[in-house]
Order: sequence, then structure tokens, then C-alpha cells
Amino acid sequence: MTNRQVLLVKRPKPGLPTRDIFQISDGAVPEPAEGQFRVRIDYISLDPAMRGWMNEGKSYVPPVALGDVMRGYSAGIVEASRHPDFKPGDAVQGLFGVQRYALSDGKRVVKCDTGLASLPTWLGGLGMPGWTAYFGLLEVGQPKPGETVVVSAASGAVGAIVGQIARIKGCRAVGIAGGPDKCAWLTNVAKFDAAVDYKSGDLGAQLDAACPAGVDVLFENVGGDVLDTVLTRMNTFGRIAVCGLISAYAATAAPPGPRNLRAVLTQRLRMQGLIVFDWEDRVPEAISQLASWYKEGRLVFREDIRTGGLDAYPDVLNELYTGGNNGKLVLKV
Amino acid sequence: MTNRQVLLVKRPKPGLPTRDIFQISDGAVPEPAEGQFRVRIDYISLDPAMRGWMNEGKSYVPPVALGDVMRGYSAGIVEASRHPDFKPGDAVQGLFGVQRYALSDGKRVVKCDTGLASLPTWLGGLGMPGWTAYFGLLEVGQPKPGETVVVSAASGAVGAIVGQIARIKGCRAVGIAGGPDKCAWLTNVAKFDAAVDYKSGDLGAQLDAACPAGVDVLFENVGGDVLDTVLTRMNTFGRIAVCGLISAYAATAAPPGPRNLRAVLTQRLRMQGLIVFDWEDRVPEAISQLASWYKEGRLVFREDIRTGGLDAYPDVLNELYTGGNNGKLVLKV
Repeated sequence: MTNRQVLLVKRPKPGLPTRDIFQISDGAVPEPAEGQFRVRIDYISLDPAMRGWMNEGKSYVPPVALGDVMRGYSAGIVEASRHPDFKPGDAVQGLFGVQRYALSDGKRVVKCDTGLASLPTWLGGLGMPGWTAYFGLLEVGQPKPGETVVVSAASGAVGAIVGQIARIKGCRAVGIAGGPDKCAWLTNVAKFDAAVDYKSGDLGAQLDAACPAGVDVLFENVGGDVLDTVLTRMNTFGRIAVCGLISAYAATAAPPGPRNLRAVLTQRLRMQGLIVFDWEDRVPEAISQLASWYKEGRLVFREDIRTGGLDAYPDVLNELYTGGNNGKLVLKV
Repeated sequence: MTNRQVLLVKRPKPGLPTRDIFQISDGAVPEPAEGQFRVRIDYISLDPAMRGWMNEGKSYVPPVALGDVMRGYSAGIVEASRHPDFKPGDAVQGLFGVQRYALSDGKRVVKCDTGLASLPTWLGGLGMPGWTAYFGLLEVGQPKPGETVVVSAASGAVGAIVGQIARIKGCRAVGIAGGPDKCAWLTNVAKFDAAVDYKSGDLGAQLDAACPAGVDVLFENVGGDVLDTVLTRMNTFGRIAVCGLISAYAATAAPPGPRNLRAVLTQRLRMQGLIVFDWEDRVPEAISQLASWYKEGRLVFREDIRTGGLDAYPDVLNELYTGGNNGKLVLKV
């Protein structure tokens, strides 16, 4: 029995991460000290933020140190415990890293009710992406009933939930996604009011048709041209919640910034960045509300679960940046 | 006795306004109807916003219609009145336009105490630029004591007041201006803590030296490279009050947007546009506070008063966009 781990051993060059920056390592299975437990990880969450965690430089968290296990949310079962609040058999999720076994002191760990939802869902709609959608939309976007909320990367883990919460709050939800399948899922399954396909022609004209009363809230996961196109359609006092700029993450050169920034001035927009860690103390509130909507059938979640184990991590991760996933991307260990 | 007026007769091409888009016209001096008064205008306020008011297209106010008197703040003396609240001899300022005589119904007109300050000052520090600095910094920038406030176009009409209010509120005030004379005025007269000259080499390095604790509030009047350079120096939860983007106003092609927008995300910045008209109801509060600080000697105002009359309007206006002015630019009629 060994502990397979994905270690970050080099800083990535600009662009998609390459396999050579990781090393797959087999070490000893760790034994918990007093106050710790050991979790056997069954699912790894693949999140766009991972690309940023690999980079050196100023960001919202320190980068993963070279030689360390790659940072990541993951979920599994407690196997051995010397922690009073966790016992063998408990299903848990947390920032356990990209590895087979992890030790934890229980801080920021969420116990997962697998009767309510599967572990992959606890990494998706009931996990960090769900919390991000919940706090990002409600605290930063501050949608009011009757307003139009546009979300980019709308079929992604966060975006799909943003639009559904917008609908719950009485807003018109419009998603931007790539391709007819993703758009059909948004309107047919996630019940968005409209979906526009950025790959099929004039995004501006499509948005004009989908947003006859303009845009009050943009939940931005993409940046680049998408942001520029929505900017000129924002209503006065609109809000732009900047959750991600994924169009830049895989770029090999810094992409140009929004040419239409003048709209921020003339329409008195509020553009604000958000990182879910800032609401760490309120995660139980988010889980409680998301779980309640989920039980009532008002939220649907979708996971895209990949096999191949930890060896597949670098390749599967990159699908996030090329739009290859359909819903929350999860790797089965 | 005729009423000389500057009419807007063409939409400007991208770039600096040219003389041919205006027509100087001599008409009859208007007589006030019941509820109106006539003001003889002595000073015209020249403001960067004027360039935007000439353009067609979506903005925060409708454009000046072709054939209409150019919109603008101006100040003068009531000559004839059929309005109960205004009498001949009253000194007033308001959106009277770029002309020698104007009629007004008194709405949004400010009576000027010329014992406290001259009419040009009532168009500057006690006028719209002062109100913009007051509401923009305090309501949007929300500076807290001990924080560092950076203001661009710092020796301009708005910027100079922003830095001084920041100091009054217990902040470190750092101005960005063009040339050693403007910088010297900022530190020696307006008592900014530091001034950096964007024309003299590495702006980033100068900012690093002037802002050892990073930047908490950016009051942005310029945009372009200045915004990009400050973005990467913003502290977590910093605020960017977007008051103007003057670097773009005179550009003949849309300038690139900020390449460092990612800082909005990673540092959870709030970037928010502001237009002073949104606080119209609170203008008396701004005047009262600004006048009080002025009387206490805690604010200094500077006007750059030009002669040449209304004929000189197009040329003098353009100095705003090329940095030719020193302080609030005012045209004597």
C-alpha cells in the first residue's frame, strides 16, 4: 500500500501546464498523529484556479512550493483517526491535495452526507464551486428580482449554479457557453432563460437578443472578448463579479485588457474580484442553502467524472482551459 | 449687446476636437420669462468631460445636440430676474453653457459667496471638480485612516482636491503628475506626501518608492498605462474609483485596456465608475464641507485662468487633454 502523489516540480511556462512540471511519486501511507485523521481520497476536484496556484508571484494564496503535493480539493473516506470529531468511515472533503492519502487536522474539512449527494457532487455543487457561485453572485453581484444576470462559462462548475441561483432570486438568467450541446443543457436542464453560443457567430447580436433589457449583473469567468462584448451592454449601476479570467490562463502571452473599460465610467459599473476563501466562515451557510435548494429540486448539478487515476491529472486538468468538460470536472482516483 | 455663443455644429472625429466642429454665433440677448433669470457669464469652466459630451452614443447624459450651445459649467452675475429666489447682482454658477448670457430656471444653480472665494474657485474647488473629488473619494474610494491613496492627473482640478481630502482623512496621499513643476506644487503647496512624475522614467519603480505599503485606493483620472502600473501595486480589497480615462479621450484609436486586470481578481479589488451627477441631491453637503476646510486653510485651490474670450474655447479646451494646464482650467469671457 503506497501513497501515490502528484508533485509540482517545476513552474509552468505561460500556457497550458505540461506533464513535465509534475512528478508522480509513490511514498509511504502516512499515519495520523494525535489530533489528525487520514483520508483515503476517491475523487479529485479539477478547478481552473489550479493553474494560478502553480505560478510564482503575488496572488491570493502562496503558490504551491516546488516538490510539494499539488494543491486541490478532494473527497474520500476517513480510514484512521486520532481526531475527536472524525471517525473511520466518515465521508469528507477538503483541501487534501492531489494524492491518494492525506492527513488532516480537520480544519476547513466538510463532512459529506452521501445520502444526500455523491462525493463528486460534494466537490461540485455542494463544494467549492457551489460556494463560489453562492457568495459571488449574492454578495458581489447583488442581483435584484427582475434584473438580467449574464454568466460566462455558464455550463462550467460555477457558472451553471450561478444562473440557477439567479433564477431562484427572480432574475432572468442568460448563459454564455461554447457549442450547441452546452447551450441546450443550459436551457433544457438547468432552465436558464437563454443561452448564447460564443462559437457560433456574432456574440454581441446574440446577447442583444437574449438580453432585451440590457445586463444588470455579469458573473465573469472568462475575460477577454467575452468581457468586452458584455461591457457595452451593461445597464447603469450594473455589477461585474470577476470570478475567473480563464481565457488568459492558457494564453502564452498576456492577452489585451478590455477595450471597453469606458463603460465602467459612463454606466457607473462596479467591477469586483472575488475569491471564495474570503467567506470561509460562512461556508456552512452556503452548504445549508445549496443543499436545501437541491433537495427541493430547484438546483441541478452535473459532474464530468474522468477515470485514469492520478496519472491522468495533467491531461484531464487541461480540458478545463480548452472547454473539453461538461460540468464539474472530477478525477476518480 | 449680443449674446456670443459657442455652438456644436459637427460631431468630432476621434482625437482632439478641432475648431471646425464649433461655430461662434452672435445672437440676441435673451429676456427671462416668468420663473427665469438671466445671467451674464464671466467665466467658463473647461472640463475633460466636455469631450465625451460631444460624441454620439450611449453615455451618462445625452450628447449635446448639433446646433446647440456647447454644454458646460459657467459662472456669472444675475442681471435680470423674474425668479423669486434670484435677484440682480447675485453671483451664481451652474450648467449655463459656453456662452455670454444664459437663461435659467434656477434648478441646480449654486449661489456663490464671492466673499469666501472668487468665481473661478466656485467653478473649481467649490464647484463640480470639488464635488467630484469629495463624493468620488469618500463614497467610492472609501479611504480609511492610514491607507495609501494614489491619484492620477493629481495636479488637475479634481486630483489636487482628492489628495488633500485623503490627507484630511488620515491617509498617505501620493500624486501622479507630468513634469517636475506639477510634482513640486503637489508636495510643496498641496502637501501631498509624495508625487511621482510619469514623464521621468520608470513609473512602477517611482510608485514602489512612494508607496512602501502598497496602494489601497486609486483615484483614476487617466487610464491606460497609468492604470496598468498601479493595478499590480494594489493591496487586497483595494478600491479603484474610475473618475476619468483622459488618456483615451484624445486618442484617435481605442487604446488597449488594462493588461493587468487579473489583479482585480487576485486582490479582490473593487473598480467602480463615478459621475458626480449621481450625488446631485447632496451637492450642498459637499459645498459646505469643502468651504469649511477651505476656510480652515486645510484645502488649497488653484485655477489656471485663460483670456481670449469665447473664441478661444476650442484651443484652450484641448490643453486639458495634453496636460497644458496648471490647476482648474477656466476661460474668462
